[in-house]
Amino acid sequence: MIGSTPIYADYNATTPVDEEVLEEMLPFLRKRFGNASSSHLLGKQARQAVDEARRRVAAAIGCGPNEIIFTSGGSESNNLAIKGVAFKNKERGRHIITSTIEHPSVLNPCRYLEDRGFDVTYLPVDEYGLVSVEDLSNAIQDETVLITIMHANNEVGTIEPISEVGRLAKELGIYFHTDAAQSLGKIPVDVGELGVDLLTIAGHKLYAPKGVGALYVRAGTRLEPLIHGAAHEFGLRAGTEAVASIVALGKACEMAEDGLDLLSLRLTKFRERLFQLLLMGAPGLRLNGHPADHLPNTLNIGFPGVTGAVLLKNTPEVAASPGSACHADATEISPVLSAMGVAQEYALGAIRLSLGKYTTEDEIDVIADALCTSYIRLLDGDLRKANN
Amino acid sequence: MIGSTPIYADYNATTPVDEEVLEEMLPFLRKRFGNASSSHLLGKQARQAVDEARRRVAAAIGCGPNEIIFTSGGSESNNLAIKGVAFKNKERGRHIITSTIEHPSVLNPCRYLEDRGFDVTYLPVDEYGLVSVEDLSNAIQDETVLITIMHANNEVGTIEPISEVGRLAKELGIYFHTDAAQSLGKIPVDVGELGVDLLTIAGHKLYAPKGVGALYVRAGTRLEPLIHGAAHEFGLRAGTEAVASIVALGKACEMAEDGLDLLSLRLTKFRERLFQLLLMGAPGLRLNGHPADHLPNTLNIGFPGVTGAVLLKNTPEVAASPGSACHADATEISPVLSAMGVAQEYALGAIRLSLGKYTTEDEIDVIADALCTSYIRLLDGDLRKANN
Repeated sequence: MIGSTPIYADYNATTPVDEEVLEEMLPFLRKRFGNASSSHLLGKQARQAVDEARRRVAAAIGCGPNEIIFTSGGSESNNLAIKGVAFKNKERGRHIITSTIEHPSVLNPCRYLEDRGFDVTYLPVDEYGLVSVEDLSNAIQDETVLITIMHANNEVGTIEPISEVGRLAKELGIYFHTDAAQSLGKIPVDVGELGVDLLTIAGHKLYAPKGVGALYVRAGTRLEPLIHGAAHEFGLRAGTEAVASIVALGKACEMAEDGLDLLSLRLTKFRERLFQLLLMGAPGLRLNGHPADHLPNTLNIGFPGVTGAVLLKNTPEVAASPGSACHADATEISPVLSAMGVAQEYALGAIRLSLGKYTTEDEIDVIADALCTSYIRLLDGDLRKANN
Repeated sequence: MIGSTPIYADYNATTPVDEEVLEEMLPFLRKRFGNASSSHLLGKQARQAVDEARRRVAAAIGCGPNEIIFTSGGSESNNLAIKGVAFKNKERGRHIITSTIEHPSVLNPCRYLEDRGFDVTYLPVDEYGLVSVEDLSNAIQDETVLITIMHANNEVGTIEPISEVGRLAKELGIYFHTDAAQSLGKIPVDVGELGVDLLTIAGHKLYAPKGVGALYVRAGTRLEPLIHGAAHEFGLRAGTEAVASIVALGKACEMAEDGLDLLSLRLTKFRERLFQLLLMGAPGLRLNGHPADHLPNTLNIGFPGVTGAVLLKNTPEVAASPGSACHADATEISPVLSAMGVAQEYALGAIRLSLGKYTTEDEIDVIADALCTSYIRLLDGDLRKANN
């Protein structure tokens, strides 16, 4: 804790809005409040701003502006991609391939489709959280219409072999979607290099506000809308454009792209320092995740002998997540760590530390010190209790 | 025009964000940026803010906080209500009743359901845009599972007999949804008095930002989610809560409720003045809409002999909408005016003037003068052209 504010190490849960992003969006919450569908001056200003944001988002991931659909966030984008492709192309086949470590907003649309006559293969992952391209290749059927594999895992940061899957999918003419909510702004994301047809973007993971996102939809992809109504977003997503939030997303994507190399280097250094300090400060810790193919900012550590929630409760200096951020106060083992076969004591004691562009070296040192101190105090307490 | 900014008379298309609303939301775009699902201090602050906003929205429409689902806006709320009830209750029946003058985000989900085995009755309206409760009663079948009729029409402002429909629906055990995007903040909206099971709220129509809305879902209503994922919003709408926008919606609903009587009186007076000035200033104008049962802020006027778009183009001093705001530069006759049987020349020449809480008496005078001057100039020009 620096002052009375905990040190924020939960950037994978959400990021602050960048001050420059906020400055760009504020005029659209004040004087420039027009509806982008209105034909008068205020409407035209709004339309121009939405168009410019679309160009910026497109430029950040290497696609055309007409391939960007603005949504309310990552969950909606995932739903639109998965249900949209499945329903629109069901005459081509009703089989979908995904993995066991996807975000709930991928897994639950898949389960929903299973109830509606679709067949879903949930690929296992190895101990590091990696999907095997060979497994995936073996799972493909004539009926396979969609593959959806996340770019990087939100809990352990493991980066999946998306380009390899993309080549395979392209070869076989199968639609391929990736959830890039956690990767954009942390590692390079180029839809051409990844070979994806659909890609999910979540604003609040990259310094834009909550409640805005986008879906990349490769030109020619057959997609059914999720929200029907007026002809916004090329007829694929009805609803008055959230102009201010869309402007913010555009600016955030531009900044993410511009600052990527430097940020990545700094976070890689910080993460390594944090990892080493933790290993030195407390006995028996273990990395949950891939030792090399991981996001530069994400460190999931198993603290044996405690639960992550209790450790964090006893470390009010640090704001981080036990297990996945989407389930507050959950005490059950994270499905991601389960799928990786992480031993129970490292899974129960898992903490996700996720760093971001406002993280400082001083904060790294305080985080490590605070966590190790609490951890050892908890272990000692338990040991004393056990000895009584 | 006052200075170089047109006078805004398009509040039904969208409203500015109220300065007090913006002040309440800004901290959540700055320091209080937590994810409401996080268990640390920042997360708890966010959760409290969302809970408080939920109480405020609920209080504004007379329901319990647990009956409010936050969404990305009116279109999503309408989709969630209509598809959600239809799919979840299809074993009870597959017939839906709506009207011909609904918003596209009601009509298009109905058409979508028609493609999926549902049967939809589109009730006609009279010359004033009113649905007949008798027609509705006659349309009810054993199979009818949902009635969806808007509270007030966005284009002409006609207020539908929702309470009467509500009594009928309740008596017969049929789910009843109303789109209150245009009524909340303009006339009293109480879910008990209206007798509705579901009610749509759109933030940007009542001085909150674009990209946030809510759906009232009466406790016990069986509803299928539209966006599947983590267990946000009582399991009915996945996606990280857009905390700042939700806070804004809460404040805006509170302010709407508090200021309703005074605002309604003022707008009624302004609308009447505007109507009288237009009638005095230009020959042959006609009201499109109901002479009595209308929103206090909405005035749809037919200017015979011109098109609304051309008239507005020649009146840059006024920002208003030709036909419905959802279709920029549309020249075809509005489906709402068509459904009302408005004669072609009054429909083509229709302009919607919609006033709001920042409208002043001076503006009313300028709007009337500017429109009448342009209109007469256009008519003269046409007459001269015709005489050559």
